[in-house]
Order: sequence, then structure tokens, then C-alpha cells
Amino acid sequence: MYASDRSRLQALIERFSQFGATANGGVTRLSLSKEDVSARDCFVEICKELGMDIKTDDMANIYATLPGKKECPPIVIGSHLDSVEKGGRFDGVLGVLTGIEAIRTLKDNNIELEIPLMLVNFTNEEGARFDPAMMSSGVIASKFNREEMLTSSDKNGITFQEALQASGYEGEQENRLTEALAYIELHIEQGPVLAAKDCNIGVVEGVLGMVCYEITVTGESNHAGTTPMSMRKDPMIVASRLISSLHEQLGKIDDKLVFTFGRMNVTPNIHTVIPNKVVFTIDSRHQSPEVMRQVEKVLTGVAAEENGCRIRPVKLWGRDTVFFDEAICDEVEKSCHNFGYSFNRMFSGAGHDAQYIASIIPSAMIFVPSIGGKSHCEEEETEFEDCAKGADVLLRTVLALQTKFSRSTLNQY
Amino acid sequence: MYASDRSRLQALIERFSQFGATANGGVTRLSLSKEDVSARDCFVEICKELGMDIKTDDMANIYATLPGKKECPPIVIGSHLDSVEKGGRFDGVLGVLTGIEAIRTLKDNNIELEIPLMLVNFTNEEGARFDPAMMSSGVIASKFNREEMLTSSDKNGITFQEALQASGYEGEQENRLTEALAYIELHIEQGPVLAAKDCNIGVVEGVLGMVCYEITVTGESNHAGTTPMSMRKDPMIVASRLISSLHEQLGKIDDKLVFTFGRMNVTPNIHTVIPNKVVFTIDSRHQSPEVMRQVEKVLTGVAAEENGCRIRPVKLWGRDTVFFDEAICDEVEKSCHNFGYSFNRMFSGAGHDAQYIASIIPSAMIFVPSIGGKSHCEEEETEFEDCAKGADVLLRTVLALQTKFSRSTLNQY
Repeated sequence: MYASDRSRLQALIERFSQFGATANGGVTRLSLSKEDVSARDCFVEICKELGMDIKTDDMANIYATLPGKKECPPIVIGSHLDSVEKGGRFDGVLGVLTGIEAIRTLKDNNIELEIPLMLVNFTNEEGARFDPAMMSSGVIASKFNREEMLTSSDKNGITFQEALQASGYEGEQENRLTEALAYIELHIEQGPVLAAKDCNIGVVEGVLGMVCYEITVTGESNHAGTTPMSMRKDPMIVASRLISSLHEQLGKIDDKLVFTFGRMNVTPNIHTVIPNKVVFTIDSRHQSPEVMRQVEKVLTGVAAEENGCRIRPVKLWGRDTVFFDEAICDEVEKSCHNFGYSFNRMFSGAGHDAQYIASIIPSAMIFVPSIGGKSHCEEEETEFEDCAKGADVLLRTVLALQTKFSRSTLNQY
Repeated sequence: MYASDRSRLQALIERFSQFGATANGGVTRLSLSKEDVSARDCFVEICKELGMDIKTDDMANIYATLPGKKECPPIVIGSHLDSVEKGGRFDGVLGVLTGIEAIRTLKDNNIELEIPLMLVNFTNEEGARFDPAMMSSGVIASKFNREEMLTSSDKNGITFQEALQASGYEGEQENRLTEALAYIELHIEQGPVLAAKDCNIGVVEGVLGMVCYEITVTGESNHAGTTPMSMRKDPMIVASRLISSLHEQLGKIDDKLVFTFGRMNVTPNIHTVIPNKVVFTIDSRHQSPEVMRQVEKVLTGVAAEENGCRIRPVKLWGRDTVFFDEAICDEVEKSCHNFGYSFNRMFSGAGHDAQYIASIIPSAMIFVPSIGGKSHCEEEETEFEDCAKGADVLLRTVLALQTKFSRSTLNQY
């Protein structure tokens, strides 16, 4: 078992947190921005120093490969260097940096790999500059069409295509990640569970299925002072009761179900006018397709009319639960056992590149605790010691998989 | 009893609806805009033709006076020519035009008044261009300070002072309305009550007292997918329950109480993020100060904390109920009896210039029905026949008051 170098990893995290550093200790490193390109340059420089071979593909994904003794598909460690606006210092970048630390630890211990080890930086995971999120892993996994993605534009009207060309990181389609023995992504949990359970590591078994509905309640605007209560069609009252009722009904389905009324827009939104329209969203997630079916039954089963107001639920989108590779998860768990790190087998409620990559490569994820469950904000925080434990588990898992693959699968190569 | 000329009044309403006419049959005639100035010019021209004397004051209020045989304070008919953006053809302007029709009917019948009759157009009643509403009647009644009003600016940064000077209607402070025997304002109801009760006329006894509270519910933002339900501090759930609960509690206080949750803003308002703040308003109105005290008791009595969220009600503003002059109301009612028009004694839920003028001059209002209760929109509609009935009642009331004042009050002059 090889332990990562705590202070070296901390220094690396601190170095990368300078790319797009904000005044309050966070980072703004939007995809393909000047700050993102600086972080990419630094990543490439470090990888070259480590003797890795650099390639980029037509989505500007960067692949740094440490050759193995055998010519065969690699084991891949992947994540992203981009952040949301005023995001934290750990989201995404930590998966890349623990990968670097793993390779440095290999070098420290003069370990030569049988199988190539590839580090990937995926472009535009956050979707904060160019919609959608997980754009490039999605293109690789044929979830999105590249031509459509090229037209996605940021708030200044710059298209993804223009940003791609300006970045200097646009490469060839033939370099895309298509074949690998395993894909592992280390990430902060972005939730409070590990910290609350006092666990060091999350063994991530998949990504929760989700649905997002938009419910529109339409009533009738009238003057707040002159319209008797009995003559109103007030969508605000109906929407409030509906949210309370949905909260109660969904709350009974399953303890692990999460659901959120995150967005609400009221029209015309004037204090002296009865609204004519209230639109709100409900995002709900659970690992079990059966539970998600029950959720959808509740959401589509709302009354079509109440107190003179029309109620219309519309499904904005959904995704099925993604199940990660059990064998890789088991190796992550074994690594925890070996180090004596406490762990929690869990699903990710947030989306990650791994959920798309899982459709083409056996994949799994490793979570480290987020203090207070915070992410996508400057207060996002993970203990450096927890980051290092994650790097330990990551490297141990890579090595275990290598041993396993060297013995079995690789006969074909 | 003198009946107004139906077709002449209709033609006058149609003529004025051309000033700022919108594509969908409404008007946009913001205060002191080009359209408003055109309507003012037309008003002044008509009044001059009727032999009336024109003055303006330092708020650009226009006073057109038909002299009486006696030199004494006038009886005043007042309203406003300005509208909201995409407002209707009746709100405000109808009070001025029924005043003109009343004077034309006097002329038709060769009636010479003992007491001067004044028609007033108040500047910026709507407050749609320059905040606050009822600005000029408020200045006259010392509710607002003129110097402060001058700095109020529209969305293009033009101040009220600049608009005042550019209008050509700025006059002398000494011309302000300060003394009169009575003030009568005819207006559309802006509510559905008269139409629902199939009444021709509203005898308006006052303007409802109101309070407006803003309630802030503060929780904690977290990721919608990664935060277990039990670890959330979700202000949306708390706010929804609170609105339902307030709706129930306030609904029990009094049948005539109205209350409206008109504005709600959710932060950050993203479907995948648990909100950290929900702010909503509640506007409540009733004629009884005791009922309003009960309302405020409920609003200030909300729990300070619920489900980990902080709840803070803040009073944005309030106004006491304005009671109009009983004697004038009785004359309006008698006029209805005389014409055989059905009527309803009622309070206004909306604000009007009369509510400020009532503090310096004995005042009352006459309502005519609003179809569907609609106002401040292009669909605003009142039957021309109902407008004419309003004009009949207005003139009869003026004549009755004149007779009464000629006999009594005027001994002092």
C-alpha cells in the first residue's frame, strides 16, 4: 500500500486554486476561459514532467497517458478542471489532482505499470459557461451531438466552437476516449452525508435517476383591493397548497427519496395584484426506477383544476439511474478496508462525467467528504487529509485493477 | 332631473381613448407624456369652449372653473387623465369626461349655477411613470413633499421636475386646490362587485384601510440531488405551509377582508438548488380598524422559526381607512333613488385621489361597474350606458349639493 504525500497534494491543490481565484477563497474557472486554459497549461506541464504522453480530442478533452509495459487500453482516471462561477477549490479539479498525486506516488516508489494509466480532463463538465453540463463526456458517449454543442453560446454570445478554437486545445476526433479497462472519477461528495456519518470515503455505486417537472398553475389576475375573496382565482394559494401536499405525499414514498421545489416564478409579481400564473419546478431523485415511477405517478396525478385555477404538470427531463461497475466499486471498498478508512456505499445525487462514460467503459466513483455539504460556492471545503485519503484509495484501486486485468482480460492483447 | 346625452358622452370617451391608444383597444397615457399632454390640451380646449376659466398649479394639476353667481369656494369634480402602461379607456379619464358631460347638460338646460363648479385633472394619479401614486393630490393634501416628488424619475431617468417643466402645464402654487365645498370623484369600480350584484352605481363611503407585510423565510441552499430530506432547511416548504396557514387564519376573521400574496421571490431560483430564501408579500384590506388589528396580530404572530428556517415579517406600509363625507354619500344615494338606478354602498379597495383630498375637503366617490372587475389592462370595460348613468348621478348630486349649500353654508360668503 502506498500512501500519498499529504503536503505535496495540499500544495498542488493550493497551486491550482490560484487559477481563477476569487476574493473569498473560491474560484471562477469557466470552461475554456483564460483561467481554465492556464490550469490546463499547468496540468499538461506537470504531466509532461511525469513522462506522460499528451493528446487532445475534438472536444478539447486532454488525455495524459503514462505508458505501461503492455500495449493495451488504459485504466483511466478522469475529472474536470472547469468550475462554476464563484465555485469552490475542490469540485472537479480534485479528481485531476489526486490523479497526479497517484502518479507521483508511483514514481516515488519506482513502480512501473503493466497497463497504461491515463489521466483525463473533460471539457465543460459544469455547463456553467456552455449548456449542457457534462458536454464532452456526453459527446464521447454519444449522448450529445458535437455539431449541436458547437453552437451553444455563453452569456456574451461566444459559441462553444469559437471558445474551442481560441483555446489552443482542440484536437482530433480520433483521439477521443473510446476504449479503456476501467474509468475512475474521484470527486467531492457535494452533499452532507459522509461528513454527517463521519466517513472518510464514499464508494459510489451509481448516479441517482431523476425527473424534473414544471408545474404551471393558472388563475386570474385582479386588483388586490377590490376583488372579494370568493370571486378570486388565485394561483398562489393553489400552488402553496399543492407544494405542501406534494411534500407530504412524496415524503411518504421512501426515506432516501429527495425532492426540491427550487424555482418559482410568479406573474405579474406585484404586491397589489392577484397573480395570474405561478410556475414552479420539482426535481426528484432516487436510485430505484420503481420509486421514480411512483414519484411520476404523484406528479402527473395532480388535480387538473382547483379553486378555479388550471394545474398543468410538464416533464422537463429525466434520466434513468446509472449503475456503476460492481467489481470496481468492490475494489474501492477493499482499498478502504486496507487503509482502515471508514466508508459509505452510496449513490451520487449530482451528475458527473462518469455517468456518461459508464455507458462505454466500466466505471465507478470515489467521494470525499464535503464540509457542510457545500459545493458550487466559495465556501466549498474538504479537509486536505480527506483529499489525501481519497488519493490513497484511488491509487490502491488503480493498482488492484491493474493486477486483476494483467492476470485476466489482458490475454486478448 | 337632467339626463346626460348618451351618444355625446360615448363620442367623448371614444375621442379621449385616441390619446395613447394601443393596438388592443387600451391606452398608454403615462403622466406628462406626449399622449397625456395631448389629452390635457383637448380637455382645456373643451372647457374653454364651455366658458370655463383655466388655471394650473405647481404640480400641473388643471383646474377648469365654471363661474357661479356667487363668489365662493366651488363644488369640485375631480379625476385624472393619466393611465398605466397598457391600461384601459375608462380608469381615471371617465371621472373627467362625465364632469364635462355634466357641464354640457347644464348648458343644454340653460342652468346657471349659484356656486362655482370646478373640474380638476390631477397629475400622476397612477404613479405608473413617477412613483408614488396619487402624487399631486397627495402634495395638495400635505401627504407628500413637493421637493421630494420633483426628484422622482421614470425608467428613462427623466425626473418629475423635468417632465413637469417640459409639459407646459406647470403653474403657480397659489392655484392649488385648498378650499371647496365638496369634492366628488366618479371612477370605474376596478372590481367585480357591482357587476356581480347587477348594480348601476357604487355609493363609495370610503377607502379601505390596508397593510402590506413582507415575510422573509431564510433557510440554507444545498444541492437538490445530494442533500437528504432530513438534513435540509428548505424555506420553500416553510413558505408554502405558511401561506396556506395564513390563508386559513385570515379567512376566518371577516367575510369582507381581502388579502393577497402578490409577490414572491425565490433565491437562487434554480431547479437543482434548494433555495436559501423565499420572500413574499401579503397585502390585506378592510374598512374596520379592529379587523386590521386582528390581521396584523396574525401576521406579526408567525413562528420565528420553523424546520430550521428563520421567519421574519416586516411591515412595508399601511394606511388607515379613509371615511368619506356621509352627507355627500347620502346625496349620491338619493340621486340613484331619483333615477331609479340600483346602487350598492361600498368601500373602495383601490386608492384614489379622493382619499387624500378627503383630508382637506368633504369628499365622496361614485363608482360605475367594471365588466369582469378588470382594470389596469387593455380589457378594462364599462358599458357606455353605465357611464351615462354615472354622469346622471354626478350632475344630480352636484345640483343637490348646490341647493343645499346655497341655503346654508354660503351665508358666510
